[in-house]
Amino acid sequence: MNAPVIAVDVMGGDLGPSCTVPACISFLEDTPLVKLILVGLSAEITSLLPPLTDSVHERIEIIDATDVITMDDPIAVALRAKPQSSMRLCLELVREGKANACVSAGNTGALMALARFTLKTIPGIDRPAMMCCLPTQANKDCYLLDLGANVDCSAEQLFQFAVMGSVAAEVMGVINPKVALLNIGIESIKGNQQVKQATSLLESQNKLNYIGFVEGDGVYRGDVDVVVCDGFVGNVLLKSSEGVLKLLRTRLENRFKANWLGKLKGFLMFLPMLRGLRKDFSPEQYNGASFLGLQGVVVKSHGAADGVAFKSALRHAYTEVEENLQARLSKQISSLLEDVLLQ
Amino acid sequence: MNAPVIAVDVMGGDLGPSCTVPACISFLEDTPLVKLILVGLSAEITSLLPPLTDSVHERIEIIDATDVITMDDPIAVALRAKPQSSMRLCLELVREGKANACVSAGNTGALMALARFTLKTIPGIDRPAMMCCLPTQANKDCYLLDLGANVDCSAEQLFQFAVMGSVAAEVMGVINPKVALLNIGIESIKGNQQVKQATSLLESQNKLNYIGFVEGDGVYRGDVDVVVCDGFVGNVLLKSSEGVLKLLRTRLENRFKANWLGKLKGFLMFLPMLRGLRKDFSPEQYNGASFLGLQGVVVKSHGAADGVAFKSALRHAYTEVEENLQARLSKQISSLLEDVLLQ
Repeated sequence: MNAPVIAVDVMGGDLGPSCTVPACISFLEDTPLVKLILVGLSAEITSLLPPLTDSVHERIEIIDATDVITMDDPIAVALRAKPQSSMRLCLELVREGKANACVSAGNTGALMALARFTLKTIPGIDRPAMMCCLPTQANKDCYLLDLGANVDCSAEQLFQFAVMGSVAAEVMGVINPKVALLNIGIESIKGNQQVKQATSLLESQNKLNYIGFVEGDGVYRGDVDVVVCDGFVGNVLLKSSEGVLKLLRTRLENRFKANWLGKLKGFLMFLPMLRGLRKDFSPEQYNGASFLGLQGVVVKSHGAADGVAFKSALRHAYTEVEENLQARLSKQISSLLEDVLLQ
Repeated sequence: MNAPVIAVDVMGGDLGPSCTVPACISFLEDTPLVKLILVGLSAEITSLLPPLTDSVHERIEIIDATDVITMDDPIAVALRAKPQSSMRLCLELVREGKANACVSAGNTGALMALARFTLKTIPGIDRPAMMCCLPTQANKDCYLLDLGANVDCSAEQLFQFAVMGSVAAEVMGVINPKVALLNIGIESIKGNQQVKQATSLLESQNKLNYIGFVEGDGVYRGDVDVVVCDGFVGNVLLKSSEGVLKLLRTRLENRFKANWLGKLKGFLMFLPMLRGLRKDFSPEQYNGASFLGLQGVVVKSHGAADGVAFKSALRHAYTEVEENLQARLSKQISSLLEDVLLQ
């Protein structure tokens, strides 16, 4: 296999090229077998490039993009008014087979819409889903999807998310991942219509390790490896978790500020730890959120990502390409859909 | 007005009468103007009573109940197989006007089903909702409903929840409460169908201080006073928040366990604080969760509540009676429904 090629939308994110370009160089230095295509305003990119070693120089390419999609651009603008945006050109490189993956820290809604338009979904998948991973008490990651790409989901979509989550978790190294539907109780009578119907679909197959329902607290206990829910619920779960951590941090900080000794203790011991934990909960920053179900690998980095976090997103895309996520997804999906349709 | 009378299901909760009976006595000692009817296995209650002062003795009554609803009893059993349960007798006392409120730490599903069956809803309210309050960065409480009584909600139900939440927040002392719908973004195009339709209903009235959408993190920031969502989402928000706090606590504890100095520091400074904060997030324990929209006041205490927490639930019920929550709800609901129907 040739070296994986990743197209990077260097214009995305709150910090833009001044963050993404150095992160790309650093990633190339760390990772010998990868090529990057930096897409954006080429003059700006060039001005940010440090002196390159030969090894890095021969694995980097710059493609000029004249449009930039801002964080506030409506989806319609991204789709129709900016045909030469860095985000779109990246996705087209993937569609044309010139790149194996696209990484962007830009506008999430625009990236999802452009990705669907440009790459299309895998046969058998109605709509792509966004997946992140969360830390757990069991000291292993829990993969959660969907995070907001799909607000109203049918049972069939939840079933597809379960398949995608399971394959993606395997790609990330989880053996025989335990898959569960998020619910408000673990008894079989609990849940809304979609969840109940999705259970029937999941129970009618034997290729996924479907174990039933998990509640909100079970997600963080590490009871399961993959948690499936609609995008409304997943988004609320993720953002309220971030909110709780911020609240806790504020309360601890206020306590530390009460006196000088407290300040010192806080500075030395607890704030770094809380900061670390908070980073875990900003999972797009932690290692990139995957857009699953597209005919191509797309990874979204958090808009507020710093260089270290952006490199995590690049590494994440690299792993998905190396592990052949998309082909494995396609295969698993068609095999499972056959099972279910033959019932 | 006569002294408020609260009917207490002393058999409910993980600890049962050994927790609830002493909590009731202590509440009577603290609160001069209240009467309690203790409903349960009378022999057990009597055996747990300490020597009573005259003031307490004349404000306590015991009613024998021969059935007890367990935490695992299905709703059908609670409704049909245990006609003499302590929970049911409490609700019947409210219906008959012999008590102004009912407090139970028992099986939530059974309590909701029995409460609906026994008390019926206020005219204009399709289904009752469960409401709790959450701590925020703004150091004021945020009221969240529904917490799981209604998994699939129509726009009309969300509208009714908004009215109930607003009135309940006022009863709890919030002036002109800011009401918001929970959503996955604050732009008007965001959300599922029910949320979008509920917005139209809320925008078509001018008696509530409806301010638009709030996201998961905004709940804990204290952006608004009342947050409305369906019971599936509310339940996930609450339980995942509890899960995050447990995870954080475990990680901090593990760090403290690393050495003796760490243990000491943890013991003295942080664990008590985390414990306190965790209590905030177990809001039924904090001050009782209200069942809103019934023709009678019903407060649910957390099943794991200790005596202090159970007293909070009693106090909560007392406030709702004193502040005439139910009559105010009825009035506001009918006035608002008129407004909306006249559009």
